[in-house]
Amino acid sequence: MSLFEPAEFHARVARAQAGMEAASLDALLLTTEPEVRYFTGYLTRFWESPTRPWFLIVPRSGAPIAVIPSIGAALMARTWITDIRTWRAPDLVDDGVSLLADTLNELGPKARIGMPDGHETHVRMPWADLERLKGVVSGNLIGDAGLMRALRMVKSGAEVALIETICGIAGRAFDRVPEIAGEGVPLQKVFRGFQMLGLEEGADWVPYLAGASAQGGYSDVISPATAEPLRRGDVLMLDTGMVRDGYFCDFDRNFSVGPPSQETLSAHARLIEAVDAGADAARPGATASDIFHVMDNIVTGGAGGSDAGRLGHGLGMQLTEWPSLIPSDHTILLPGMVLTLEPGIETSGGMLVHEENIVITETGCRFLSPRASTRMVQI
Amino acid sequence: MSLFEPAEFHARVARAQAGMEAASLDALLLTTEPEVRYFTGYLTRFWESPTRPWFLIVPRSGAPIAVIPSIGAALMARTWITDIRTWRAPDLVDDGVSLLADTLNELGPKARIGMPDGHETHVRMPWADLERLKGVVSGNLIGDAGLMRALRMVKSGAEVALIETICGIAGRAFDRVPEIAGEGVPLQKVFRGFQMLGLEEGADWVPYLAGASAQGGYSDVISPATAEPLRRGDVLMLDTGMVRDGYFCDFDRNFSVGPPSQETLSAHARLIEAVDAGADAARPGATASDIFHVMDNIVTGGAGGSDAGRLGHGLGMQLTEWPSLIPSDHTILLPGMVLTLEPGIETSGGMLVHEENIVITETGCRFLSPRASTRMVQI
Repeated sequence: MSLFEPAEFHARVARAQAGMEAASLDALLLTTEPEVRYFTGYLTRFWESPTRPWFLIVPRSGAPIAVIPSIGAALMARTWITDIRTWRAPDLVDDGVSLLADTLNELGPKARIGMPDGHETHVRMPWADLERLKGVVSGNLIGDAGLMRALRMVKSGAEVALIETICGIAGRAFDRVPEIAGEGVPLQKVFRGFQMLGLEEGADWVPYLAGASAQGGYSDVISPATAEPLRRGDVLMLDTGMVRDGYFCDFDRNFSVGPPSQETLSAHARLIEAVDAGADAARPGATASDIFHVMDNIVTGGAGGSDAGRLGHGLGMQLTEWPSLIPSDHTILLPGMVLTLEPGIETSGGMLVHEENIVITETGCRFLSPRASTRMVQI
Repeated sequence: MSLFEPAEFHARVARAQAGMEAASLDALLLTTEPEVRYFTGYLTRFWESPTRPWFLIVPRSGAPIAVIPSIGAALMARTWITDIRTWRAPDLVDDGVSLLADTLNELGPKARIGMPDGHETHVRMPWADLERLKGVVSGNLIGDAGLMRALRMVKSGAEVALIETICGIAGRAFDRVPEIAGEGVPLQKVFRGFQMLGLEEGADWVPYLAGASAQGGYSDVISPATAEPLRRGDVLMLDTGMVRDGYFCDFDRNFSVGPPSQETLSAHARLIEAVDAGADAARPGATASDIFHVMDNIVTGGAGGSDAGRLGHGLGMQLTEWPSLIPSDHTILLPGMVLTLEPGIETSGGMLVHEENIVITETGCRFLSPRASTRMVQI
C-alpha cells in the first residue's frame, strides 16, 4: 500500500532508535496522525473523526507496535507493520488504555517512554485517559527530548520528491486561476473553483485554502472566503496546502484584479526580491534566524517581523512543521530540510504576503514550487 | 462575519454558565477548533497548522475571553468576542502560557477551571506547556464533567438548518456520481471527481472522503483511494464528510458497477430496512443503545455489532460527535440531536455499509440526508 520502499521505514526506525539511545529513552509513544504515519505509512483521512485514539510504540530495539481500534486493523495490515493489537473502540469503560498499558509494560518496570511534548505537538488522547495511563504504566511517561521533531525535520529523497510533485500540482492550479477568477466573481466561488482546479491537476485532497481579496492589500491571511465579489483594484491572494500521497505543499499567489497600482507592483516585486534573497542565504550551516533576517531587512528594513510572527517554516507531512523563520529560532539548516519562505510587506491597503517552497541541498537550496514572476499576474 | 445571530452565542454561553453552576466550575478552558468555534463563531482552516495553540476561557459569569496568537486577532475581532488578548506566536520561550495563566488567575486563587477530558476530546497544546500551566495557575485545572459534550450534543434550529444544507449538497453530488464513475475508471479519479462535484454543488471544502470499490463488498470503510480501476461486479462505496459554513454532513452511497448480484441487492435492501427501523425507533426518550439494537437485530440478527464498533454517531461541527450507537451508550435522545444511522452487513465479498443523517424532533426524527432508494444505483 505504501509509496515508500520498506527501506525508507527501516531507515526511519533506525534513526529513531539511535536517537532513543542518545536520549536514554526505551520507547517512543506516539498518538497523532503524522507521528503514526511517519513510521508506518498508515494513510487515511479517518483521523478527521475525533472519536478514537490511536497509538504507536517504537521501542529502542525491535519493530514498532500498533495499538489501534479494530476498525483500522485491515488498513494497518496493508502496511509493513506486523505487530497490530486492537480493541473494539469506542469502549466507554476502557478505550484502549489497558491494552496500551499492557503493551508498554512489556518494556519493563523502569522503562523511559518518550512522548512528543514540545512546540507544535499535542497528545491526541483524552486528558483523563492520559492521567489513567500514568497510573497503570510501570515505566515513566516523559518528554521525547525533541526526537520526533529532529527526525521529521530532515526529509529523505523520496519525501522531497512527493513534496515537489504536489508543489507542481498546485502551481498548475495557480496558473489556471484566470479561468475561475475576475472582477465580479464572489470570493467563495473563487475558493471553490480553485480547489476544483487543484483536484483536477492531481491533488488527492485540499486540506488548506485561505486568502482574501481587497483593495491594495488585505488585513489577514487566514480567513475563509466571503460572498463578496472581486472588485477592480483588489489584490486576490490564495494560499493553499494541497496533499498528494500524504505530503503537503504550502505556497500562495497574488493576483491583481484589473491593472495593479504602482504601490501594489512595487510591494509584490519587493516580496519576490525578499524570497530570492532568502533562497540565496538558505544553505547548510545557515540558521532559520539568518534567513529571517535576510528577508526582514528587505521587507521592513530590519524591524524584526510582524504579528504573523514568522517569515516561513518547515513543511512536509503537515502544512507547517519545524523550524520557524523567526529571530529566536537558531535551528541549523541541513540538506533535506524543506522550508517555506513567506515574507509579508505592509501596504496602504493592509499587507501582501508571498510564499514559495524550497529544499536545502548540499550546497544551497532548490525551489520546489514553480517560482512566481516578479510582475504580478493580472486577472 | 458569523452566520449566526448574536442571540445564538448568548444562548450557548448562558447554557454553559448554567452548566458550570451545576458542576461547580468557575470557568471552561478550551483549546480545540470546535470548542473555540462553538462559543465564538471563529471559523478558519488555519487550525490545519499545528504550530500555534489557541485558548478560549468561558467564565461562569461575564463574556468569553480569547487568548490567541496575534496572527488571529483581525479575524477574531470580526466575531462577537471583544476581550481578545494576543501574543506573538510562535514564542519559543513562552508560547502563550504566561498570558493564559495571568488571564486564568483573574478568576481567583481557588478557581475550578474545567477542561474537556473525556472520550472524543484532547487538549490541543503541548503536553510540557500544560504541565507548566498547572504550575503557574493559582486555581485548579480539572475535567469539565462532560459539560462541553452535553452542550454540543443538542443542536439549535440554526445548526440543524446548516447540517441539512450540507446534506443536500452532498446528496446532489451523489446523484451525479454516474457522471464520473464507471467500469475502468481508476478509484483515485473517482475520488477526485467526487470532491469536485461536492464543491460544484456548494460545499466550502471536503474534509473527509473514504471508500472502496471491490467485488461484492469491501474489507474496510476508511481507506483512501488506490489507482485500481473499477471492475464490473464491484460495489463502489463513497463516504463523505463535506462542510458548509463550518457544519458537516456524514453519509455514504453504494453503487453497483454493472448489474448487481442478487446477494448485493439483498444486502443493500437489508441495510435500508435497518436504517428505516432505526429511524422509526429514534425519538425523544429512546437511547443510543436502543437504536443500535434495533438495527443490529436486522443486520446481524442481534450479534452485538462488528469491529467497526458502532452503527452510527452524533454529527455537527465535527464529522463524528457524541453519542455512539453501541450497546453500552445509554445517552437519552433529545430533540435537536443529530445522528448518523450507519449499519453494516457482511457479504461474501466483505461488507456493505449504508449511512444516513437524521435529527431528533419533538415526536420522532426527520431525515436530513436525501434518503437512498432501496434499489442500489447501477453505474
